[in-house]
Amino acid sequence: MLRTEGYAVTSAESKFAPFAFERRELEPKDVLIEIMFCGVCHSDIHQARNEWDNSSYPMVPGHEIVGRIKQTGAGVTKFKTGDFAGVGCFVDSCRTCDNCRQGAEQFCQVHAVMTYNGTEMDQQTPTFGGYSSQIVVAEAYALKIREQENLAAVAPLLCAGITTYSPLKRFNVRAGQKVGIVGLGGLGHMGVKLAVSMGAEVTVFSTSPSKEADARKLGAHNFVVTKNPENLAPLAGAFNFILDTVSAPHDLNPYLNLLALNGAMVIVGIPTTPAEVAAFSLVTNNRILAGSGIGGIPETQEMLDYCFENKIFSEVEIIPIQKIEEAFERTLKADVRYRFVIDMASL
Amino acid sequence: MLRTEGYAVTSAESKFAPFAFERRELEPKDVLIEIMFCGVCHSDIHQARNEWDNSSYPMVPGHEIVGRIKQTGAGVTKFKTGDFAGVGCFVDSCRTCDNCRQGAEQFCQVHAVMTYNGTEMDQQTPTFGGYSSQIVVAEAYALKIREQENLAAVAPLLCAGITTYSPLKRFNVRAGQKVGIVGLGGLGHMGVKLAVSMGAEVTVFSTSPSKEADARKLGAHNFVVTKNPENLAPLAGAFNFILDTVSAPHDLNPYLNLLALNGAMVIVGIPTTPAEVAAFSLVTNNRILAGSGIGGIPETQEMLDYCFENKIFSEVEIIPIQKIEEAFERTLKADVRYRFVIDMASL
Repeated sequence: MLRTEGYAVTSAESKFAPFAFERRELEPKDVLIEIMFCGVCHSDIHQARNEWDNSSYPMVPGHEIVGRIKQTGAGVTKFKTGDFAGVGCFVDSCRTCDNCRQGAEQFCQVHAVMTYNGTEMDQQTPTFGGYSSQIVVAEAYALKIREQENLAAVAPLLCAGITTYSPLKRFNVRAGQKVGIVGLGGLGHMGVKLAVSMGAEVTVFSTSPSKEADARKLGAHNFVVTKNPENLAPLAGAFNFILDTVSAPHDLNPYLNLLALNGAMVIVGIPTTPAEVAAFSLVTNNRILAGSGIGGIPETQEMLDYCFENKIFSEVEIIPIQKIEEAFERTLKADVRYRFVIDMASL
Repeated sequence: MLRTEGYAVTSAESKFAPFAFERRELEPKDVLIEIMFCGVCHSDIHQARNEWDNSSYPMVPGHEIVGRIKQTGAGVTKFKTGDFAGVGCFVDSCRTCDNCRQGAEQFCQVHAVMTYNGTEMDQQTPTFGGYSSQIVVAEAYALKIREQENLAAVAPLLCAGITTYSPLKRFNVRAGQKVGIVGLGGLGHMGVKLAVSMGAEVTVFSTSPSKEADARKLGAHNFVVTKNPENLAPLAGAFNFILDTVSAPHDLNPYLNLLALNGAMVIVGIPTTPAEVAAFSLVTNNRILAGSGIGGIPETQEMLDYCFENKIFSEVEIIPIQKIEEAFERTLKADVRYRFVIDMASL
């Protein structure tokens, strides 16, 4: 077995501490990735603190992983030692169900193996994430990453990037459309960059007036402060698509009311309490409220290639692993522009 | 002015009583329709009783109107005296806004003139509906109805028909798909007939075990009693499309959980309280929850033509106008198979 160093929490209330554990020896189709950077996602906080009521401990979070191939199994064809590679939110699935065959492995009907706080296909062996020195993963579930000056800025694409890219593509966001991005955090700032790159006129909805300059720097055309509901009323029916990236409970109806005929709003944050949706908010203008959960392996690779071609990366603040508690607190206060990324050399 | 007899309520608490009022004289593009039949829609009850908090009195409900052209304005080209014609939920709109130009006049951005409990384009003159002897309407907002033995069975198409046809078409329901219809009432029974006609495998979800035989007679392939939530669990992820026709408040999450990858559930009933929607219900499988509100004039005509071609009509119970109170009570108890239609000769 491969002895691995990481940082773990041992309960919903505990602080992070160094934690040593074992990764499996490489199977023929596995690669061993030396983790260089790992993003800090809001869902790391939800799960470390058992806010979704599905946590197992000890837990090594982290599913925005970028690193270098250190070793390859005998049957590996996609990577060679020294290549850059990424790992996102899941590391295996049944590969044969309807959803897997459609490239939506994240919704595997048998068992999606989440990168951490999950279990392997045996549904027993726990998985440990990217707040660690290395990871073993089947090559089919690792993504190809091009060489790039600032690899830290690539890490958040593995979750924040695909989570925003997938619904923008699915609902065919394009030039001539008015698109709203609700929340300007780790997901929202990627949503702005991606929607702008697709040609849409982008409006950011944020509770923080202080983020307007940043929003415009990211490419947004308009900025609306949402603390005052009066600011939304004149925009009723004006948007073709809205991406709601907010993880905290909030009222969806004022945003639904902004949608034009056949417009769609997609939620990608997962608040811990349900949203109250008025039937009139949906029936008027034949509106759509949809959810979107990360993306499958083929679409994640497509997104990475798109981002490299269009030079779209995350705005990051690099931290050593020892500052992870502070990073969680600052993320909760929206005091990060726009994603913490752990430099694993600090381990 | 044209003196017209009808039945009205004068407050949210009052009973129906005979009511005489005036329709406008015909303008050049107007037709006068002698009303033969008018369906009783659940929204008649909501509005007569001010359950949507938007009612004006006196109110003459009724927006499932079928009749015969009695007189035509000088500029009318679409109808001649003696033709059959229908009127649905709205009778005018601005005709120039984005939504009107897209054929979604029901969502006119200026003012959709609802058939009753609304106002004309002057936003002052009240409109009165189909529980009456005749109606004057611009020909552009009247639908062509083919000659047909049982015209009473056509009336509900003007609301129940288009309300269910529109979302089934929009989400491209087709052969090979699994479709659920929640609720087997006025809307639901039309949803079953239409989805079956489009080739889908149709499952009816109902709280009433007694409706199974009817559901199968209407063409449904499966029937699930929803009083016991255990009956839903084995169907998780199995449906491509669900049409939820229930007007009473109910939990949407157990139905959302039935949707397969990229599946959509459309609500067409308008409960008086908002629904609580869990983010996980939508994010899992990238699910869609959408609303749908009746349909525009071009699509309503398309639906009528489709129904005549495919011999799809409503199952109706014909009543005299004097029994309208009893019809409301029985509709609320789901004691109607499947739509009350008033024979206006009874006036």
